Amino acid sequence: MRERASTQEVEQALDAYRIVAVERMLARLPDREPRRHLYDLIPSYPTRPGKGLRPGLCIASCRAFGGTTRAVIDSAVAIELFHNAFLVHDDLEDGSEMRRGRPTLHVEAGLPIAVNVGDAMNVLSIKVLMENLVTVGPRLTWQVFGEIEHMVRESVEGQAMELGWIRDNTIELSEADYLRMNLKKTCWYTCIHPCRIGAIIGSGGGVDPASFDRFGYYMGAGFQIQDDILNLIGDRSRYGKEIGGDIWEGKRTLILIHLLNACDSREREQLRTFLAQPRLERTSRQIRSVYRLLDKYASIDYARTAARQLAGAALHEFFVAYRDAPDSPDKSFIEAIVLYMVERDI
Amino acid sequence: MRERASTQEVEQALDAYRIVAVERMLARLPDREPRRHLYDLIPSYPTRPGKGLRPGLCIASCRAFGGTTRAVIDSAVAIELFHNAFLVHDDLEDGSEMRRGRPTLHVEAGLPIAVNVGDAMNVLSIKVLMENLVTVGPRLTWQVFGEIEHMVRESVEGQAMELGWIRDNTIELSEADYLRMNLKKTCWYTCIHPCRIGAIIGSGGGVDPASFDRFGYYMGAGFQIQDDILNLIGDRSRYGKEIGGDIWEGKRTLILIHLLNACDSREREQLRTFLAQPRLERTSRQIRSVYRLLDKYASIDYARTAARQLAGAALHEFFVAYRDAPDSPDKSFIEAIVLYMVERDI
Repeated sequence: MRERASTQEVEQALDAYRIVAVERMLARLPDREPRRHLYDLIPSYPTRPGKGLRPGLCIASCRAFGGTTRAVIDSAVAIELFHNAFLVHDDLEDGSEMRRGRPTLHVEAGLPIAVNVGDAMNVLSIKVLMENLVTVGPRLTWQVFGEIEHMVRESVEGQAMELGWIRDNTIELSEADYLRMNLKKTCWYTCIHPCRIGAIIGSGGGVDPASFDRFGYYMGAGFQIQDDILNLIGDRSRYGKEIGGDIWEGKRTLILIHLLNACDSREREQLRTFLAQPRLERTSRQIRSVYRLLDKYASIDYARTAARQLAGAALHEFFVAYRDAPDSPDKSFIEAIVLYMVERDI
Repeated sequence: MRERASTQEVEQALDAYRIVAVERMLARLPDREPRRHLYDLIPSYPTRPGKGLRPGLCIASCRAFGGTTRAVIDSAVAIELFHNAFLVHDDLEDGSEMRRGRPTLHVEAGLPIAVNVGDAMNVLSIKVLMENLVTVGPRLTWQVFGEIEHMVRESVEGQAMELGWIRDNTIELSEADYLRMNLKKTCWYTCIHPCRIGAIIGSGGGVDPASFDRFGYYMGAGFQIQDDILNLIGDRSRYGKEIGGDIWEGKRTLILIHLLNACDSREREQLRTFLAQPRLERTSRQIRSVYRLLDKYASIDYARTAARQLAGAALHEFFVAYRDAPDSPDKSFIEAIVLYMVERDI
């Protein structure tokens, strides 16, 4: 992939990593009762068509630093289990209706069972991580445990920030507030720790995990902003969620924060009133009016520019973070992923 | 405590263990943002007046087998963190209104934030368990990790069984079904694993953990049935939950299962219809009618007898499980706990 990989090539490569991780995850699920209200529901999100970004980054980073898929696969599965647990809880916390082209789990199975399925996925990831003892030995197993602990803690902290803004109807937010929340809620678990964990295992603990932080942060921020753009203007059949869902949910995206800071005081009051309403009382007419304001102040264009700048910074940091890794298809894949993240339409 | 301890003495002893664990837990909480919507909410349940059964059993079992409080305290804190995370999620899954004399967390903070606070407590317990590396060394740390992993997995499986019965409106349930669910949902994390983990650490890994399973199972089953009785006829100011909440929630307790199997077919249909309604559509009149049936078929008396028989079996198993532990105040405390569990009114 020394020539720039096409979108299709990147998606094929991502899919290959994803399938390896999902198959291993399914093989690791308990083969026993209770099935219908627990273990049968765990594959629901992981087997829907997804990007597979996290296992891709984790496995490729391991191999780029000289490790094998076998050495890293359980860590990749643990990340993917955690990711899907987080999605299940995130969806019910946000009241989201669609995920990867189908109803969200709490819509399908009811809220109580969905909360419990998320809890089960979290505990299953602990068992999977303990398998590392056999494959990579106690020292690396502990180091990976520490990585996962930090990853999950940052994610719940970022989630608390975002949920707090909605609960308090906070609208005095800057771009820096958004980026801080996004670092916590998304970047650590989507990019930074998958790369760190892969590289730790691949190098047998020889790399400095912190050397991946800037790369993962820029990439994760660009990824999330692109996701927020697709949420508003994507193709539902490709993107898999309800289009405009973030507006219905009152999410404090970079796009909304840009608008709140760019609009005039009358429009700002109108937005505050809209955001103060419970989700179920918001109307399609109000949503259309928010879209008109986003258009008037070019907030989506602003976010698109920000995502591209972040991808540029991520590409620069890629060459720093992976400079000690020899050229390889895995290394090239990670490089290709960076621009794909802000060009994708899924 | 060779003479039988009074209720008050048992409660004082429990409280002493509980305070040690809660203070250590509070000292272990991150001292940073986000506070208001995350870290400030974590102490909510643990600092409300509770029984402290789990840290009591865990610390006392450790000391009874020759260990120190210092060696076991982080494991006790991890169990208590998990327990409170489970309560937070359990309350919102059941739609419960009161916990330990105050509104449940999802009522106070909203459902999204409560789900996330529970997730945070779970991940914090991993960090606390990793502290064991320093205090008890890697071998016991791994063993305790395995114990905790099993404990949490059994709990979510039991929870899935109970939530599934409510979702499917299952009424064809036997006492054996109830006991199996209760073993999974309650006994492992309330009694069996606290005793096992305490004894593992106290004995430096010298005891067979399985030797506590029968004791903890009988004790936990008796404990939960007593809890179900108090839920229906307790003193709200002592018990701390809404009285009759289990009926409002349609919980499949031993009491309800006894009634469903004892009543005539007309009454059974009436109960099925009642249980099929969404919780918010159930009326006080219906609740009173369920109470009349419970009275008619002496279902609460039946449960009371079952709880006492289980306590008797637990006492017998206590002498087996703790036979190698020399006499000590900690050992006597555990013995006293057994009968207290089915005599308490809180």
